[in-house]
Order: sequence, then C-alpha cells, then structure tokens
Amino acid sequence: MCRWAAYAGAPIFLEEIISRPGHSLIHQSHGATQCHSSINADGFGVAWYGDRPEPGLYRDVLPAWSDPNLRSLTAQVKSGLFLAHVRASTGTATSRNNCHPFVHGVWSFMHNGQVGGYDHFRRDADMMIPDTLYAARKGATDSEALFLVALAEGLDSDPRAALERASARFIALARAKGAAPHLRMTAALSDGKRLYAVRYATDDAAPSLYYRWSDTRGGMAVVSEPLEAEEGGWNQIASNTFCTFDGAKVQVEAFMPCKLVEGYLQSTASELAAE
Amino acid sequence: MCRWAAYAGAPIFLEEIISRPGHSLIHQSHGATQCHSSINADGFGVAWYGDRPEPGLYRDVLPAWSDPNLRSLTAQVKSGLFLAHVRASTGTATSRNNCHPFVHGVWSFMHNGQVGGYDHFRRDADMMIPDTLYAARKGATDSEALFLVALAEGLDSDPRAALERASARFIALARAKGAAPHLRMTAALSDGKRLYAVRYATDDAAPSLYYRWSDTRGGMAVVSEPLEAEEGGWNQIASNTFCTFDGAKVQVEAFMPCKLVEGYLQSTASELAAE
Amino acid sequence: MCRWAAYAGAPIFLEEIISRPGHSLIHQSHGATQCHSSINADGFGVAWYGDRPEPGLYRDVLPAWSDPNLRSLTAQVKSGLFLAHVRASTGTATSRNNCHPFVHGVWSFMHNGQVGGYDHFRRDADMMIPDTLYAARKGATDSEALFLVALAEGLDSDPRAALERASARFIALARAKGAAPHLRMTAALSDGKRLYAVRYATDDAAPSLYYRWSDTRGGMAVVSEPLEAEEGGWNQIASNTFCTFDGAKVQVEAFMPCKLVEGYLQSTASELAAE
Amino acid sequence: MCRWAAYAGAPIFLEEIISRPGHSLIHQSHGATQCHSSINADGFGVAWYGDRPEPGLYRDVLPAWSDPNLRSLTAQVKSGLFLAHVRASTGTATSRNNCHPFVHGVWSFMHNGQVGGYDHFRRDADMMIPDTLYAARKGATDSEALFLVALAEGLDSDPRAALERASARFIALARAKGAAPHLRMTAALSDGKRLYAVRYATDDAAPSLYYRWSDTRGGMAVVSEPLEAEEGGWNQIASNTFCTFDGAKVQVEAFMPCKLVEGYLQSTASELAAE
Repeated sequence: MCRWAAYAGAPIFLEEIISRPGHSLIHQSHGATQCHSSINADGFGVAWYGDRPEPGLYRDVLPAWSDPNLRSLTAQVKSGLFLAHVRASTGTATSRNNCHPFVHGVWSFMHNGQVGGYDHFRRDADMMIPDTLYAARKGATDSEALFLVALAEGLDSDPRAALERASARFIALARAKGAAPHLRMTAALSDGKRLYAVRYATDDAAPSLYYRWSDTRGGMAVVSEPLEAEEGGWNQIASNTFCTFDGAKVQVEAFMPCKLVEGYLQSTASELAAE
Repeated sequence: MCRWAAYAGAPIFLEEIISRPGHSLIHQSHGATQCHSSINADGFGVAWYGDRPEPGLYRDVLPAWSDPNLRSLTAQVKSGLFLAHVRASTGTATSRNNCHPFVHGVWSFMHNGQVGGYDHFRRDADMMIPDTLYAARKGATDSEALFLVALAEGLDSDPRAALERASARFIALARAKGAAPHLRMTAALSDGKRLYAVRYATDDAAPSLYYRWSDTRGGMAVVSEPLEAEEGGWNQIASNTFCTFDGAKVQVEAFMPCKLVEGYLQSTASELAAE
Repeated sequence: MCRWAAYAGAPIFLEEIISRPGHSLIHQSHGATQCHSSINADGFGVAWYGDRPEPGLYRDVLPAWSDPNLRSLTAQVKSGLFLAHVRASTGTATSRNNCHPFVHGVWSFMHNGQVGGYDHFRRDADMMIPDTLYAARKGATDSEALFLVALAEGLDSDPRAALERASARFIALARAKGAAPHLRMTAALSDGKRLYAVRYATDDAAPSLYYRWSDTRGGMAVVSEPLEAEEGGWNQIASNTFCTFDGAKVQVEAFMPCKLVEGYLQSTASELAAE
Repeated sequence: MCRWAAYAGAPIFLEEIISRPGHSLIHQSHGATQCHSSINADGFGVAWYGDRPEPGLYRDVLPAWSDPNLRSLTAQVKSGLFLAHVRASTGTATSRNNCHPFVHGVWSFMHNGQVGGYDHFRRDADMMIPDTLYAARKGATDSEALFLVALAEGLDSDPRAALERASARFIALARAKGAAPHLRMTAALSDGKRLYAVRYATDDAAPSLYYRWSDTRGGMAVVSEPLEAEEGGWNQIASNTFCTFDGAKVQVEAFMPCKLVEGYLQSTASELAAE
C-alpha cells in the first residue's frame, strides 16, 4: 500500500500539499494511519504541470522525508496541477523506474493498491502493451503496465472508459492466473488539463480516498488520507466510482470493470489454450 | 535513535545476524520496539573483518530492507567479527558518509544515541580532532567526531579509557554550550581482534543493550534488541559499563566519563573565554 | 560499448583484476582504448562465487571509479571465479536493474555489444522469455533479455548451444524488425563451475576480447582489453567462437547463430503475420 | 577541475544553458576541452532563483548526462538567474553534500579549481568558519569551506572584498601548510539579485572563463567553456578580476587576494606557534 496526493486549482507551491500540512504526504510516508503499513519509504515521486503540455517528473528511491532535493523542489515550484506519491513496495525492487507517478506524453498516472497474484501473469500483462508504447515500459511494476494498457485503450478520448477496460483486462488475468482479491486500487491521472481519480476494488476493501475543495486556496486536493486530522470538509469518494474534477465541481461516474471481465476472460482463455 | 548488532566468534554468514533472525537487524529497521522511533531507514552499514587487518565497509542510504546489494553481501560473506547498523537520523543528512560504522585503519566504530545540543558546538567538537586524523572526517555526525576523538585519545592502547576521555570531552561541551541530556549512547567498536561495547547515559535513560552467547554457533551477539523475541539467554548490559568480549567471556568495567568532565570543563571554559 | 573482465583460477582478491592493474577495469571505466567511447560510467557490477552455489552480486549506478563500497568489497572478498563489468549505456536508463552482471540461480552473465534496432522489437524479445523466468526480468536491457532467453534455451545442459539459439532468435528479430548490424557481442557467463566466453558479430566488427593465463597466480583472466599495456601473453579470442576455460586450458568452439536464423525468421514471420 | 555555467537575464528554461547547446554543460560533463580531465562525472548541481528570495537546489551524484530528474527539471523550470555545475572530484568523496552549488540563505556559490595541499590544513580551514555558520558545513570540500568563510567575511555587504579576504586566508594556509599552486579558481556566486564571477590564480594558470550577452535571449551567460564552438561573441574574462553582471553590462574589478596574504600569514603563524 502506498499513499498519494493530487491537486488541481490555482497554482500553489508543491510543499503546500506535500510537506506543510500536519498530516502531509511526507508525514504519511512514515506515519500513515489508514492502511496496513504505516511506512511508505520505498521511493517517491511528483509529476507537475507548468509551462509545457508535458509534466515535469522527479522521482527517487530515498524515503521522501530525507531527500533535500524534494524539499527544495517543493519549496520552489508552483503548479496548478500535480500528482505526488510515496511508495511501499509490494515486492518489486526499489528503483526510480518503479516509482510513481509514471508519465507518457501529456499524461501522468499514479496508483495505490494491488493486482492479485501479479507475479503469475506479469508476462501476459506486458504482452497487452502494444509495440508503440513498449519503449515506455521502463520498470517492472503492475502500476506502470496498467497505465500503458490504459493509454492503449484510449485515455486520450475517454479516460474513464479506457481505465475501465484496462482494469477489466487485469482482473481477467488475475482470475485466470492470479489470486483474489483480483484488483484493489485508487489512482489519479491527468492529461495536464483535468484531474481524474478512481476508487475501486473487486472485493469490499477499496483503499481509502478523499477530496476537499479549499475556497481560500481556490483548489481541490484529492488524497489517500486527509491532510489535517482536525480539518472538516473532507469527502470520502465512494468505491467503484470515477471522479473528474473541474474547479470546485466533481463529476462522479460509475466505474465497473467487472462488467467487462467476462469478455476478456473468454479471449484470455482462448489465448491460453493456444499456447 | 538507531539500532545495531555486532558479532564475535566462529565465522558465520553476516545474514545470520543481519537478516535471518525473527527480530533481525533488518526487521528492527522497520519494526524496532525498544526505542522511540520504530523506523530506522536513514541508511545502514556493515563493517566486517576477513583476511586483512582492516575491515571491509559497506554503507548505503537506502532503507536496509530494500537493498539487494546488502542482501547478497550478507548471504555471501562470512566473518568472525562484524558490526552492523541501521540509522534513524537525529537531524544530520542521509548520506553514505554519515552512515555507521565508521572505520579508520584497523578500527571500526558504531553508535546509537545522542549528544545534547550538538549543533551548538559541532565546530568545537571538530576542533578536538587532531590534524593527523582530520582527513578521516568525511561526514558531519557527532558519532564520527566522537570516534575520531577517541582514536586521538588512544583507542589503540586502552580502548575503555580512550572512549571515556572522548566521551567526557563531549559531555563537557554539551554542558558548556549544549543541552541536557548531555550524552546517551551505546556503542560497539573493534580493532579486528576484540569486540568492545559500551552503554552509558548522563541521565538514567541509557539506550538498551544486550548480549548472548550461542554454544551452537560458538559466537557472541551484542545487540540493541534481542534477535528473537522468544529466545532466552539475552543478558542486559548494565548502564555505565564497558564490556570486552573474549569468546564466551565478558569482562565488564565501569565507564564513568562524568568523573573526568570537570577537568575538561575548566579547559573548555578557558578556551571559550579566550575566543 | 561496455568493458568487462572475468577470472577463473586460484582465489584472489577481486581488486587484483578490478582495480590494481595499470589498465584495470576501473581504469578502463574512464580510459578505455579499444572501443568507441572511452567512458564507461553508467553503472557497474560484480558477480562472484564463494561458499555457496549461487553467486554474490553487487551493482550500483555510480561510476565505478568513485564508489567506496566497490573499493572496499574488492579489497576484502577473495574468489576463484568472478565477473565484473563497467557500463556505457546505449540508451537504456542508468539503474541498478540495468547493470551487469545479471544472475539467476547459479548462473551469472554479462555482455558488451549491441542488438540492432532493439527498441523496435523489445516487446517481441520479452515475449521470448517464458513465464517461469519472467519474474527474473527486472530491468529493460537487451542483455538481460538475451540471458533469460538463453536460460530458457538450456544453458544448464549445453551453454554454447543455448546461447547460440538465443542469439539466433535475437538476430532473427533484428532482421525482421530492427537494423544492421544485427548483433555484436562479447559475453561471459558462468554456472559457478566453469567460465565461458563468447565473441561474435553478424558483421566483421566483433568487440575486442582477450585471455591470459598467469602461472604466478594460477588463474585465467578474460577481458575486453589487456589489463597491462606492456604485459605479454594476451591472446585475442577469434570472432565467432565460444570458449570454455578449464584451468590453463581453453576449449574453442565455433559459435554460428547465423546458421540457425533462417528457421527462427520463418517462425517470427508467421507470428508477425498472425498479429 | 570541474565545469560550470551561470545565467542572468530574462527567464529561460534551464535546459537552454544546461543541455541544449552543442557544447552545453551536459556535453562538457563527458567532453570538456579546456581542462585536464574531459570527464566531469562526480556529481552535479543546479541552484536557481524563482519566486522566493532563497534559491532552489538540486544536486545528485550520478553523471549529469544520465539523470532523468535533471533532464526533466531543466525542461520545466524557468529562471532568470541560475548556477549549474558538473564535478570532477580532486579527491573528496562523491556525495551530494560535496556537490556544487552550495547555498546558504539567499546566497549560492560554485567553484572550479584547487587549493594547494588542502588535505594538510583542512582542519584549519574549518576553524575559520564561525559557529554561526558551522551548522551549514555539510560536506568536506575546500569549496564549501571557502564559501562559508566568504559569508563570514561579509558577502552581504561587499561580495568582491569578502571573497578576496576569504581567498587570502586560504592562500595563507596553503603557503604555511600546503603546497603550490596555492589557489586556482573560477567561481560564480549570487544573492538572487546579481550574478558575480571571479577568475584567479596565484600562478599564471587560472582556469578558463568566458561570458557572452545574447540580445535575442536578453541574457548573460558566464561559462567555463563557450556553449557553442562556432559561435562568436564569447569574451574571455581576464585573470585576477572580479565581475559583476548587470543586464548587458559587466563591471570588472581587480581581484588581488595576494596583497592581503601577508597579514593573514602573520596571524596564521602566531596561531600555529600557539598550538
């Protein structure tokens, strides 16, 4: 389990989300309260949008709390749209290429959760990434593979539907070759224009996810855990929904990859039979 | 607060102390129970004696639990005398040069604890290191400075007395310019022939320290926390004592730097007056 | 182009190959003379055999010349069989998982060279790695993929034939989707019992490779470049041959993957047609 | 010998100096032409001024050419005043704390050159740093010590005079305890308002230094080596001068620490006598 925080709104210093609040993302890196492990020290990353359509990306393998580069960067850089992540590895190596967020073109993506029995079908998951995107496969995580498959499924035209299809394909593999729970996730993604987030699980234990609009700041924070313990106004995002954030407004849609799984299962089964 | 473990006896794979036991040093790096912080993820190190009089040294800034090099090294290297350390920084940067153990010539040294108000007299502490040893000052920690001052005070001829004098000089500085508690420490040190350990505090809160002789293994383990929760035979080392380990035998001597502090205080005071 | 050195014989300190000689591997990391780039500073690694059937592995992303851990390790560890490598990236990220040698079970493998147009068929290359070995795919290099495919092709039973088949499959892909020159390589590999090396190219520009037996030392060195400029006794390994080193003896066999390529090309073509 | 580049003018992406030009700083990191070593791969750093009085700082120990974080940062961050540095160690460890630039409060500083026989008086140099600045002593380089001593000598009120006095004190130590050449340096420094640079040597071999005003860009570049081999308009800065850059104008003043050395030599001698 990892922890993450995203922001969209009037430009702020990154540190206002990442390190300043009482239960900031940095604080959650060694004292998370709403997940199994309180320690998220297997690397970190931040993707931010600035003067260019493509996001900046800074990732490293140190615990987030001890990196002076991160401290300096978040104190200097202002952005109106950014994603930040602290990682607790579920097995994959601690390496920059395995740290979130992942970026490709204008897109950024980060993930918290697990894909059941991923080690048993990692190769099949990689096979779902088309040649044109395979050069972007730098690490070995399920999260990066999910992102690239979602890109292939059409993030550009319909982010919700593309991520739903990609998730369904992973669930199909987990059912065929992996283990339950097949998928648990929260994820944030952006094309530099809008911020999207999803909360989902194939069982009833989706990871925690909250959002809060700040009038003072003129911005929306979307987070694994509320940034201030005592602060009101944090709304829990319902399981199995996909949120599109637009200023103070949130559009909530159903996110139901399970409905698509059967179709993928059949094609997976025929592929497996053909092997 | 950091955690450490040392071993002297028949050669064993380093992993038999560092990663294999149920409450191994690696386990303590994310689940320590006998100190304020359960997380010791600000770097690690191991110094081991082999075919040469000088020890080998491997240190890095990752959490110990996630470093494949450490895992491989401890699975391959056998040693009859080694020191291993996981670090929780008390403020100094996470950098290889600030990781324990420190080595110089045949000596190795590692430390857990604190020097009260060290930031206020760091320069004075450095000035106590003579020119001949100053080239060995690589980092910025109180621990490395204490080691180098102890070397200057004569570790080679009388380890206990040298470390006592060095500690007294640090306590004098902490009294004159720092803060209480002036010194709390456990430390292990070796010249490649013998293993020494000390437990001390200027107040009544010396960090925990234990040793245990294993007949099976033919070796002595000296540790911040017992390596197996359920295992008997762990002896707590008394506060304010210095131990010399020789096979299954332990020679325990008083360690009383406080008795020497007055003399150093006077010289410190006259130096400060002269500034 | 990278540089590497391997050793098999009476146990020696690793530094006797890696850092001590006048044109040691460390020296070649910033002053190589027999390849395009004199700088090999994109990470390094060493795999060595000791008391266990599996090799130890130490890899890091710093230039080899500046890593104190490497210096200490090579001064302490003695081994009768080891592989060491300094890397000049041909495009893939500088990451520990992309550093050579690669190890799996008792096997170790390192490589210097290039696979023509690899980026265009990286996914196809990954697909040649069977599920059972796919968990060992940690990085993104052509070299690691080649090693894993060679394992799948039967390194355990016939190293030469297995590496020949794996190479042929890569050449077939390079012909179908990549670019010329299709394959240039030198590689060293070992199962902990014997040291093997290969020199090969699909054109007439195979990278340099030498071996030299030392009576004094009782050992065989196999290297990209002679370790001493003035020293006699260095034998150039012929292109398109596979060497098995056994004490002072060298068994040289033809290495002709080109003869196998046609068969793989047909199957590759039919697979591509089926896509 | 290191290489560096600084910029003051209309805000530009950092990459326009650091990575884009044909002989950019990144290019100089592996192909410098005007210094002894063509390789500057022992770490890098960039300090930039943005929305805050204090500069941002990003430093790491990888070669500059292979760090994706640096590539992304320089592609995203715009600044009207920044300093960038690639390092070739003259002996001190490769560690983030030994990488340039160094920053303190609003000041940033970077250096190329050498202090003769520094190892023999490193402790004396540290002693010149007052207590109030000693907490900022993070590494072990001569450059950081020189910067902190210059701060103590009054960078805030008169940068040229302060750096001259600090340099004189180092030269005095090099004469008393070190070796010739006593000091060779180019340095750039800034308080976030103005950019300053110095070129100096106690012998006739000051490192190279150039500046060039770009009308197109509306900015001044100050560099170890011209950023484009074929480009005109690069002015060599004379030895033993201190430059203050103000828009397209350059104020050049004499920089003559040698005139002050005698006074410091006498006080150094009396201190040494008192030891």
